Amino acid sequence: MVVRRVELPPADAVRALEKYGVSTVHEAQGRTGLLAPYLRPIYPGAAIAGHAVTVSLPPGDNLMIHVAVEVCTPGSVLVVAPTSPSTDGYFGELLATSVRAHGVKGLVIDAGVRDVRPLTEMKFPVWSRAVSSQGTVKATLGSVNVPIVCAGAAIDPGDVIVADDDGVVVVKRAEAANVAAASQQRAEKEEGTRQRLAKGELGLDIYGLRTKIKELDYR
Amino acid sequence: MVVRRVELPPADAVRALEKYGVSTVHEAQGRTGLLAPYLRPIYPGAAIAGHAVTVSLPPGDNLMIHVAVEVCTPGSVLVVAPTSPSTDGYFGELLATSVRAHGVKGLVIDAGVRDVRPLTEMKFPVWSRAVSSQGTVKATLGSVNVPIVCAGAAIDPGDVIVADDDGVVVVKRAEAANVAAASQQRAEKEEGTRQRLAKGELGLDIYGLRTKIKELDYR
Amino acid sequence: MVVRRVELPPADAVRALEKYGVSTVHEAQGRTGLLAPYLRPIYPGAAIAGHAVTVSLPPGDNLMIHVAVEVCTPGSVLVVAPTSPSTDGYFGELLATSVRAHGVKGLVIDAGVRDVRPLTEMKFPVWSRAVSSQGTVKATLGSVNVPIVCAGAAIDPGDVIVADDDGVVVVKRAEAANVAAASQQRAEKEEGTRQRLAKGELGLDIYGLRTKIKELDYR
Amino acid sequence: MVVRRVELPPADAVRALEKYGVSTVHEAQGRTGLLAPYLRPIYPGAAIAGHAVTVSLPPGDNLMIHVAVEVCTPGSVLVVAPTSPSTDGYFGELLATSVRAHGVKGLVIDAGVRDVRPLTEMKFPVWSRAVSSQGTVKATLGSVNVPIVCAGAAIDPGDVIVADDDGVVVVKRAEAANVAAASQQRAEKEEGTRQRLAKGELGLDIYGLRTKIKELDYR
Amino acid sequence: MVVRRVELPPADAVRALEKYGVSTVHEAQGRTGLLAPYLRPIYPGAAIAGHAVTVSLPPGDNLMIHVAVEVCTPGSVLVVAPTSPSTDGYFGELLATSVRAHGVKGLVIDAGVRDVRPLTEMKFPVWSRAVSSQGTVKATLGSVNVPIVCAGAAIDPGDVIVADDDGVVVVKRAEAANVAAASQQRAEKEEGTRQRLAKGELGLDIYGLRTKIKELDYR
Amino acid sequence: MVVRRVELPPADAVRALEKYGVSTVHEAQGRTGLLAPYLRPIYPGAAIAGHAVTVSLPPGDNLMIHVAVEVCTPGSVLVVAPTSPSTDGYFGELLATSVRAHGVKGLVIDAGVRDVRPLTEMKFPVWSRAVSSQGTVKATLGSVNVPIVCAGAAIDPGDVIVADDDGVVVVKRAEAANVAAASQQRAEKEEGTRQRLAKGELGLDIYGLRTKIKELDYR
Repeated sequence: MVVRRVELPPADAVRALEKYGVSTVHEAQGRTGLLAPYLRPIYPGAAIAGHAVTVSLPPGDNLMIHVAVEVCTPGSVLVVAPTSPSTDGYFGELLATSVRAHGVKGLVIDAGVRDVRPLTEMKFPVWSRAVSSQGTVKATLGSVNVPIVCAGAAIDPGDVIVADDDGVVVVKRAEAANVAAASQQRAEKEEGTRQRLAKGELGLDIYGLRTKIKELDYR
Repeated sequence: MVVRRVELPPADAVRALEKYGVSTVHEAQGRTGLLAPYLRPIYPGAAIAGHAVTVSLPPGDNLMIHVAVEVCTPGSVLVVAPTSPSTDGYFGELLATSVRAHGVKGLVIDAGVRDVRPLTEMKFPVWSRAVSSQGTVKATLGSVNVPIVCAGAAIDPGDVIVADDDGVVVVKRAEAANVAAASQQRAEKEEGTRQRLAKGELGLDIYGLRTKIKELDYR
Repeated sequence: MVVRRVELPPADAVRALEKYGVSTVHEAQGRTGLLAPYLRPIYPGAAIAGHAVTVSLPPGDNLMIHVAVEVCTPGSVLVVAPTSPSTDGYFGELLATSVRAHGVKGLVIDAGVRDVRPLTEMKFPVWSRAVSSQGTVKATLGSVNVPIVCAGAAIDPGDVIVADDDGVVVVKRAEAANVAAASQQRAEKEEGTRQRLAKGELGLDIYGLRTKIKELDYR
Repeated sequence: MVVRRVELPPADAVRALEKYGVSTVHEAQGRTGLLAPYLRPIYPGAAIAGHAVTVSLPPGDNLMIHVAVEVCTPGSVLVVAPTSPSTDGYFGELLATSVRAHGVKGLVIDAGVRDVRPLTEMKFPVWSRAVSSQGTVKATLGSVNVPIVCAGAAIDPGDVIVADDDGVVVVKRAEAANVAAASQQRAEKEEGTRQRLAKGELGLDIYGLRTKIKELDYR
Repeated sequence: MVVRRVELPPADAVRALEKYGVSTVHEAQGRTGLLAPYLRPIYPGAAIAGHAVTVSLPPGDNLMIHVAVEVCTPGSVLVVAPTSPSTDGYFGELLATSVRAHGVKGLVIDAGVRDVRPLTEMKFPVWSRAVSSQGTVKATLGSVNVPIVCAGAAIDPGDVIVADDDGVVVVKRAEAANVAAASQQRAEKEEGTRQRLAKGELGLDIYGLRTKIKELDYR
Repeated sequence: MVVRRVELPPADAVRALEKYGVSTVHEAQGRTGLLAPYLRPIYPGAAIAGHAVTVSLPPGDNLMIHVAVEVCTPGSVLVVAPTSPSTDGYFGELLATSVRAHGVKGLVIDAGVRDVRPLTEMKFPVWSRAVSSQGTVKATLGSVNVPIVCAGAAIDPGDVIVADDDGVVVVKRAEAANVAAASQQRAEKEEGTRQRLAKGELGLDIYGLRTKIKELDYR
């Protein structure tokens, strides 16, 4: 099953979410949407946001990633989840070359990736659960742009994927603008707090925690 | 429960332990005190030693880290262990800003950390079992400066924590001077051995292992 | 048991395998021989190939690595597997200094390694399952240059070990020349494909996958 | 957030799904909906199906299970997922006594459970990722009867949960009748196959695999 | 290092703790002292309490268990922790025969055990992290009756070990009588609660949670 | 690749190895050949030995098990390893019915199995790393009766597989008679030791460990 058209999130919201990053966005939407922390970037420093093109595929088979390329558009982030746990290397330099030619910003995969050195040199960011050369076949069908669960998070096609050194978070498409606004508010508020903390003020005082601790202590 | 005053280890011993590093110190004290190797630094190259300020807290709740800041002093290393396994992100850029203002040298946490990029840029070193944006609440009390078990090692407040690219080791406060001296001896002895090995001499001969192997072989 | 003489793979095949790297070699030999992906390099960028000197040793005991040094020759890669799972640090700066003096190109160990910083500075590459300072004893015998299983792969002494940022793969000694040739063919073929993909052609078309998908769909 | 009313799946479909069991149901709905196999029953032999009452709660906090009891009805299966990984014991004999009084058939929890002996004696079935006495607090709010991800599967309130010695599978409420019918068909077909296999006929012949193998071999 | 004499906990407290079991005891002492839940009993139904004889030994070496037998007395529970992670089988039928002859009630080991069938038949209970036939050597010294960390918990010789189907908990020797009394109180209180819950009363009402939830909701 | 004929081990050696069991056999052959302890029996009490029919297959694809049935003979033990890590359910009741009709004694699989309840009822023993309903496809070729690595052990077709509650061990075909004899000797010797230990004699004295400890202590 391949869904070719999905509604996209507003471009300015995506830009804002990319700017604020995973931890701020995760907080700004009420501490939801985080993918499992075993997903790690293959090199440090990458930070992207884009709309999800989702791929569900059988273990050890990357046929559907080739299918997915055709529905990718500039700004897509590929989100790939096998139907059972796997560390195989479903994706490498050739596929990165291909999807980059179609505007894809990066890959999030609940499995393995290979060609880490070339991918690093071409600055194509990947968040994966493993690095593995183990090759895959092209023998069985799956789905593109259907709802999937990737690394413990439910992701719909068109949702915003935000990824950086802290991990990966998903923002529901319809919430993207709100979460972007909330992220900005949080970032601005944190700036003030940072300055006070840097001068030595205590979080106990800034956040009003002393009263709370007393209440907890009396129980 | 918060203990505000703990006896500190001798400053020159701490400096020496920082210089010799985790592997030498671990050997010098009889191969004890190592924290589990799943604790990893968030960026390479950091190497610190300091006295432990210990924090025991419930899973998913970082209230007690805020409490601990108040008892930190220059040279402290925060050592945080949740009461059950967790990968949440209990600590990030704001808390790092706060504890640095109070002289804390780094964080060792048997859980997750977030804001990896800002922490790397501000050179605040962290050894953790995970990187995760997952936020925590401030709803339940724990303890500061009580004996804890962190990543499999028993740690008392005021013990010396040594951490570098090899991991984290704890030195009992009362043993700090002895272990520093033994570390120096070991380092000096290794220097001679290194030169002989570099010339191609065999460890079999330098360490007198040939006799031992013969004995083992005859059994 | 120590086997001192093993037949070596052809030197030009080893050079070629080092050049093409783990993922290409693994594919070129029919997707076999890959060691488990939990083996990771201690620093990025190293890429080596060499003939295996195998070491089987008891957990927590590195005596046999010292024994193995004597049978290493220029171009050797040490391949070490304990007889039961272990993360101890069997190898560090001193042993690296020693084996380098005998021409060893690197270490692959299904266990832990220590002195990561000095090893990185001296550019001695290691692929390990853990970084750990935990010291080992020298109390029990094992074997050198016998067939072993390391990280899930069967390895005979004299086999070619190829290791880079993607992991580690073993090539049977007798197959080294063939696999080197097949690797070259694959690399050349991929170059053409890469250029077509970079222009936006789809893998679906280049690999003729559309017909296959139709067939699969009709079943 | 607590949703009190959810549409229920047809009772006869639930009964049929309970009868056919996890593996048959999973196959009958196209190999989807399986929860991760780390969920294991606390005692062998239990086999249930019922409509999901979902609970999302913070790690180490079971307040929302108490809230959920009020919206349970005869035939409910509690499905509990903490917002980050946890092995704490959120549920034991007292809660089992309570939910049984409200008709709950069992518990599926992506975390720990305790009181295994009393739960076994009262035949209250639980599928969990751990057994742990670790107590939880009642300090933070979560949600009841919202869509959750539990052990890697997306679950909506009112979906059918089927659980037995093979694990746990979810069937979408709207698909329950169809999947029940498909399960019956599969079970009937398997009965015939079983008899032929028991007589020594080969799956190669029964499933027509010889032709397929020849085709694959020619590629 | 072998400590031959340790102070024992009061016998009636040990009996009471055995009766109330791990989950109740863990709660009664403020949710502390639990060993990691990866320790599992080798057969269901065993429930013991006794004073700890602690053993620290190198990985893959069980010499110190043989040493420990000599200091075991009726009511001892052997608590064994290797100095680095291990799944080897340090203990089997012969050692069980031996320690039983000296009154040992069971074994808690942060490693592997073997001879599961004979141990089950002779009803010698073991809580371990693995079942493994992997044999161990007798080549290196360790310690008996020193403070150890076992499965994440700090244990002193003479502490009370309580173990049943829920896992293992340690009670400090000096606290044994208090914790036994608190366990009895908790058990008695739970009995009343159980009857009310069985009649369908809600924990929300019995524990007064409705007010708390309202407060939390208003924040 | 399917090898139809393999040389079988001597039948009386297989019977003897089955009788002595995994731990004794593993010891009798010098503590080698053990498969990783994550392989666990799906029900307690089974104990078998037989000659290995090996199967190497791609992840998520059980076609080659169907192929293997044709080369199974009375006394075979199926040994199945996917080419990359997997927990899928490659084998269930139907395949068990089929292979039993051809004399297969049991299954060892470095992956998952399903239909645990029916398999338990028909007393078809399985040692697996997981229980999972996750279905597999029949789309890609592999090999039957080639050398494989299964759960960390190298296994050739025709080797003897011994499996019981302690796990699984492989005995090389050519060594089967010797290992059977050594197992008998070990079992007989242990009987005498058991009686002495049961009377309270110490292993320290029976095994002459006191001298050894003194030697170790002097170093």
